[in-house]
Amino acid sequence: MFIRLGYDIEFEVPAPVAIVSMLSVHPSRASDLRAPDEIGIEPTVEVTSYLDGFGNRCNRFVAPPGTLRLRSATLIEDPGTPDPVAPNAREHPVGELPNEALIYLLNSRYCEVDRLSNVATELFGAGAPGWGRVQAICNWVNTKVTFGYQHARPTRTALDVFTDRVGVCRDYQHLAITFCRALNIPARYCTGYLGDIGVPLTLPMDFSAWFEVYLDDRWWVFDARNNMPRIGRVLIATGRDASDVAITTSFGAAILTRFAVLAEETTAPLTAAPGKSAPA
Amino acid sequence: MFIRLGYDIEFEVPAPVAIVSMLSVHPSRASDLRAPDEIGIEPTVEVTSYLDGFGNRCNRFVAPPGTLRLRSATLIEDPGTPDPVAPNAREHPVGELPNEALIYLLNSRYCEVDRLSNVATELFGAGAPGWGRVQAICNWVNTKVTFGYQHARPTRTALDVFTDRVGVCRDYQHLAITFCRALNIPARYCTGYLGDIGVPLTLPMDFSAWFEVYLDDRWWVFDARNNMPRIGRVLIATGRDASDVAITTSFGAAILTRFAVLAEETTAPLTAAPGKSAPA
Amino acid sequence: MFIRLGYDIEFEVPAPVAIVSMLSVHPSRASDLRAPDEIGIEPTVEVTSYLDGFGNRCNRFVAPPGTLRLRSATLIEDPGTPDPVAPNAREHPVGELPNEALIYLLNSRYCEVDRLSNVATELFGAGAPGWGRVQAICNWVNTKVTFGYQHARPTRTALDVFTDRVGVCRDYQHLAITFCRALNIPARYCTGYLGDIGVPLTLPMDFSAWFEVYLDDRWWVFDARNNMPRIGRVLIATGRDASDVAITTSFGAAILTRFAVLAEETTAPLTAAPGKSAPA
Amino acid sequence: MFIRLGYDIEFEVPAPVAIVSMLSVHPSRASDLRAPDEIGIEPTVEVTSYLDGFGNRCNRFVAPPGTLRLRSATLIEDPGTPDPVAPNAREHPVGELPNEALIYLLNSRYCEVDRLSNVATELFGAGAPGWGRVQAICNWVNTKVTFGYQHARPTRTALDVFTDRVGVCRDYQHLAITFCRALNIPARYCTGYLGDIGVPLTLPMDFSAWFEVYLDDRWWVFDARNNMPRIGRVLIATGRDASDVAITTSFGAAILTRFAVLAEETTAPLTAAPGKSAPA
Repeated sequence: MFIRLGYDIEFEVPAPVAIVSMLSVHPSRASDLRAPDEIGIEPTVEVTSYLDGFGNRCNRFVAPPGTLRLRSATLIEDPGTPDPVAPNAREHPVGELPNEALIYLLNSRYCEVDRLSNVATELFGAGAPGWGRVQAICNWVNTKVTFGYQHARPTRTALDVFTDRVGVCRDYQHLAITFCRALNIPARYCTGYLGDIGVPLTLPMDFSAWFEVYLDDRWWVFDARNNMPRIGRVLIATGRDASDVAITTSFGAAILTRFAVLAEETTAPLTAAPGKSAPA
Repeated sequence: MFIRLGYDIEFEVPAPVAIVSMLSVHPSRASDLRAPDEIGIEPTVEVTSYLDGFGNRCNRFVAPPGTLRLRSATLIEDPGTPDPVAPNAREHPVGELPNEALIYLLNSRYCEVDRLSNVATELFGAGAPGWGRVQAICNWVNTKVTFGYQHARPTRTALDVFTDRVGVCRDYQHLAITFCRALNIPARYCTGYLGDIGVPLTLPMDFSAWFEVYLDDRWWVFDARNNMPRIGRVLIATGRDASDVAITTSFGAAILTRFAVLAEETTAPLTAAPGKSAPA
Repeated sequence: MFIRLGYDIEFEVPAPVAIVSMLSVHPSRASDLRAPDEIGIEPTVEVTSYLDGFGNRCNRFVAPPGTLRLRSATLIEDPGTPDPVAPNAREHPVGELPNEALIYLLNSRYCEVDRLSNVATELFGAGAPGWGRVQAICNWVNTKVTFGYQHARPTRTALDVFTDRVGVCRDYQHLAITFCRALNIPARYCTGYLGDIGVPLTLPMDFSAWFEVYLDDRWWVFDARNNMPRIGRVLIATGRDASDVAITTSFGAAILTRFAVLAEETTAPLTAAPGKSAPA
Repeated sequence: MFIRLGYDIEFEVPAPVAIVSMLSVHPSRASDLRAPDEIGIEPTVEVTSYLDGFGNRCNRFVAPPGTLRLRSATLIEDPGTPDPVAPNAREHPVGELPNEALIYLLNSRYCEVDRLSNVATELFGAGAPGWGRVQAICNWVNTKVTFGYQHARPTRTALDVFTDRVGVCRDYQHLAITFCRALNIPARYCTGYLGDIGVPLTLPMDFSAWFEVYLDDRWWVFDARNNMPRIGRVLIATGRDASDVAITTSFGAAILTRFAVLAEETTAPLTAAPGKSAPA
């Protein structure tokens, strides 16, 4: 399966501002790209590309005053299979976890493991360890939280989601991640493309959030918002929570004026030229 | 100058528990060590040593039920000079910062940059950029916050410090770090040894917290709690905030029953044998 | 001047639910009414009317399942003069305040006086006591907070307004009230009608919030949202904060499906019959 | 049974400060007093006594700079019976509650009913309504929260107690009250004397907190901290939460330097003279 990917984002920039973007396909998927994946920036600015401490591809640049447009279009090959399900995947005792996984057990900005630790134990502590327990967490979060874009709020933490029971996709994942960590299951936040392949289209396309947990010697995708195996996730970045993987971080004012994202199946591997066929 | 360093910490462990410790002198100071710096653990357990994503030396092990004792004693050579002061050190525009410094501008568990951004701008935004502004932040925090061990609370965030105006040393640094980041000055949390060299002894020895900011192409020490140049800081770990650099993190119950830390000047480079001359 | 007042509110009620409404004109304005001010409820239910501990007129009833409609239309005579301004009104030392005013110095659900006390002192403590200081508080809040219905959130407290700087009219008043109380100026929350008399109409009509402070032996109206003297406020209820004076409080599910409020100047004292001429 | 009651409290007052005290026995118990219950204040100041909106006896005065001493000793007759237990007491539907009870269903400073409503329903919503459900709430809170004076913190809310699981007696009651209100059971905070009559003495005497719920046409005592029927409670004040019934509220600086409370059984109704036999 081939998936066309792209975005077209505009800001009004009142004064020169440094911006870091995480809009490139994750290095772990780079070999699947069938077209260049380069950020197109108007006006032309000098861009530095680097990997952050989590292994994500970042671009940084200083935007001049005026309209800033970020866009790209590329093509990726995808197995076209749904997220794997492994009901027998087992939890590792902390002592067995790889060193790199340990940081994903700790507190982070939106995931107050300390404050939700007792709740997590009460709700899920008695469950059988392993895949089923993570799935139980996703089921709980998915059932209890009501989705709504009107509920989007940049400062909402997992504790807020737990009490207020409303949110957008990132809020679902933050609460599920926090519960997992409280049970000593490493969990990390993911952002990327997720089109409507195989499911009815319900909402305007956006970047999506999901999370990964470490079970049975590898990381597995879970998604407390959609809570079903999906086809065609294309990872952009992983981190401790949404703080680490913002699509764009501007260190000063930049007013979003346009936002369009594309991720759709395409039959033929036609080359998409970045900066030419912008998504609608 | 030579400084004797050591610690002697005991826990009661009810059930086997995985523990990560950050009790080793930071790799950046390893060449100053004049004696081995190895963690002594009783009972004997298998220990794995690794560097975390921030470059800190970590040890991990699984403690069996019963009494767990962690101790060490070592010796380090130190220039014996106070923290450098560079009133002319300039701030970098974000666009000039090194890639690795950018993460220290973001939100973290105890440092809600988003929520204190307006306050920081109102209090310090009009100040001349550079060293003086960071010093102004330290002066403000040092003056406004009242110290007290009775105010220690593991869940207190920078916002809590700002509103409640009480705390222990980590709280001072969290608030100052948050203000710096809100002004686009990279700031990272530090933990380490800080004896009473050159100052009157006022409190029982403990590990200490301070922070570093990135100005003029390097990291500089600031300390909103003591707020004066000090002699003899020995860095153990740096991270985004206290979440990243806990002295010990236990993934399950471990009750602290003894805690002693030593950092004192000594005249001769006598070798200290770890596990033999425990600090009083 | 005569003002036509009215509302037309509908809920879908899934199961019988007790409701308390504060939709009657405040007893202090009852003598100005030129038509009956009775709540019209469909379907017909038994209604109990009482004064709460703050002196507000409340109605309570149990709504059956189905559509619930609350409406009324009445007429009030109003002096047609703007909110009084008394730049020389002085603050009372707490020792001089009437007993009844003291409760309006305390913490309440949305007004964390304790947590914002230091901030209030830093921002306004040096100002000359009296009217001017309250006005300075309103100016500050009005300037710093950005209005937006998309920012409405029932759990937002004064501290949240202070950090996040967004909100709807109740949020402005909560922050201003909290600052006043922190300075020992009694402040209470008000809800009522406020039409667009004498000002350009900008938003769909809604009930409005303002607040009152006790200066110079009486209560005075302030409004940190509009921050200008207005004509035609008709008080419904006062309390410690929005918790005490919700237009409707339902003790169980009741989904709001229609909400219209009317408050407009009319030239002649035509009698408005409740339940007949519902507001558009 | 007769109970000797008293207190001896000292403050250092740096500048004249208005103080409101709630240190008198509640009007509902006035007829049981067997000696005068008057606050003794040194130095002599003019005192105004009044009932607040909750029916509590308050004293207010302005303390001059210097040492302020508040003390009293009195005697009360008490039935000597434990708190009544009525397992069959039923809950009222909200529609049946008396008007005055409705305010005790709402949010207040320390009781965020809105934020804990879902949790309360999940934990206790399926329980049989009535006495047993309130008792289940007390059992839960009593079991889950760990007591410790080192955990005292004036800004801790019910939500903080729920997440952090530590506190002093007021914290226990705040959480239990919030759960009750979320289930539409009116609950109000109480403060008063509670000696160690019939139980082993464990802690230095202090004023105590408990709460009352409205079941079966009256208010009943519950106590999530002690969680057992006790003998000899002497009510001082009730309110929505601890904000309303602080023993003393000072509107400016007043540093507590001495605090002693007495409530002990005595065999004979010897008259205690206020201001003469201060409690030890």
